[in-house]
Amino acid sequence: MTAHALDLATALDGDHAAPARVARTSDAYWTFIGPFGGASAATALRAVLEHPERQGDPLALTVNFCAPIVRGEYAVHVRRTRGNRSSQHWSVEFTQGESAEAVLTASVVTAARRDSFSRQVASAPQMPGWESLAPLPRKVSLSWVDQYEFRFAEGLFPPSETLPDPPRSPRSVLWLRDAEPRPLDFVSLAAMSDAFFGRIFQVLGRIPPFGTVSMTTYFHASADELRAHGTAPLAGVADASVFHRSFSDQSVELFGAGGQLLATAGQVAYFRA
Amino acid sequence: MTAHALDLATALDGDHAAPARVARTSDAYWTFIGPFGGASAATALRAVLEHPERQGDPLALTVNFCAPIVRGEYAVHVRRTRGNRSSQHWSVEFTQGESAEAVLTASVVTAARRDSFSRQVASAPQMPGWESLAPLPRKVSLSWVDQYEFRFAEGLFPPSETLPDPPRSPRSVLWLRDAEPRPLDFVSLAAMSDAFFGRIFQVLGRIPPFGTVSMTTYFHASADELRAHGTAPLAGVADASVFHRSFSDQSVELFGAGGQLLATAGQVAYFRA
Repeated sequence: MTAHALDLATALDGDHAAPARVARTSDAYWTFIGPFGGASAATALRAVLEHPERQGDPLALTVNFCAPIVRGEYAVHVRRTRGNRSSQHWSVEFTQGESAEAVLTASVVTAARRDSFSRQVASAPQMPGWESLAPLPRKVSLSWVDQYEFRFAEGLFPPSETLPDPPRSPRSVLWLRDAEPRPLDFVSLAAMSDAFFGRIFQVLGRIPPFGTVSMTTYFHASADELRAHGTAPLAGVADASVFHRSFSDQSVELFGAGGQLLATAGQVAYFRA
Repeated sequence: MTAHALDLATALDGDHAAPARVARTSDAYWTFIGPFGGASAATALRAVLEHPERQGDPLALTVNFCAPIVRGEYAVHVRRTRGNRSSQHWSVEFTQGESAEAVLTASVVTAARRDSFSRQVASAPQMPGWESLAPLPRKVSLSWVDQYEFRFAEGLFPPSETLPDPPRSPRSVLWLRDAEPRPLDFVSLAAMSDAFFGRIFQVLGRIPPFGTVSMTTYFHASADELRAHGTAPLAGVADASVFHRSFSDQSVELFGAGGQLLATAGQVAYFRA
């Protein structure tokens, strides 16, 4: 049995007693000028999840994309900044070569998730079923896109010679799944929280120079709940509230089986247009 | 002229050549068991803004509240993790006493904000004007609440003996301003992004044990644009998407003069109910 491409892309070598572990970029998750940010985010999270002192489930993950990661190996530094009775705080930094400057920084909160009052306010989007929507044709040149199966119900961005008029909504509604099915876990959920095309593409009708600067994902389910989801597609909604002075935001919701909200994410991205 | 309470609460002593600067908690911004998170977030941001090597405007701020900060002094460690041509990444940690464990960690991205394509998708909420709404009576026991003037149009939470039925929406719409007017800047905007009562209070109709774990604020305006806003009240919208297994999220939008979206924020908070 061959390992899943996501597990290869997020694999870490070396033990935790060393000053850093070692990971490497994956050509299978490549984007414009570096690795797919979702794969980097998933690697940062995995470094924490595999730490022998880690307790509880991930609750919050923030990833700052400091500089393009060059193809090849990088060092992953993990530090527990605080351990409390029921939660832990972690810092992660990626460095490359001899430079002390980070190419990525991340923070992770892990916590015990106890039974409590429970209410979901956000609803899974109304859209046709997975089976009745066509997959996104695999004709794009970015390898990471081929690692997912996208089935858009709303907000796919046909290219446009001019700025679309009337203005296009930045909202997209779609089904999303690993192209090679893989049981859902926090690692894949972290990656999927970045697997939405830049909202600016849709609004402009073209792909300008673009890059995510910072992303935060909140996990709303326990490990048990993710396991129960299995390999089914997730329902995803992505939107933006503003494009201004060369930056825009993006908000994401990811719903699992039965419409359970599994994760929400926000990001801020650079664009030149 | 006396300094504004927020400037006193976020003041930092010592220069940047030292291993850490020194700040202290403010009794004027106190909450259940520690300082108001917004004041701590604002202090972390201010430490970066005052750094002599800082360039550009803040774009993203993530604050992890690791442990209650004890009344008194704390050390503020600021490190530039990456400097690029047009953006910089910063890490901030607060420690107290002899412990190396952090009581707060934060990351900040600063960036040059250039003119670009601009479009705002989110709209300021429709609500009665500031003058026609009653201020929140100042009868609460938490000092930080007195530092703001809140004028609720929607979603103030009257206490309830039992779980409200039908269920209450977690959404609030309100005007918000420093009680003692202060010209808007990134420091006050960071603090205000945490100045919304826990969504769980509203849904339960009571205040359970509660604490913000992590908060991320995205700034959507340049320093010039904030300056133009002056001391006018901000229009705020807060909402939540899920309460589950002892944690909930919160999303916030803050609109300034003319309905410009100045900041959006997300947070994840613990509750026991």
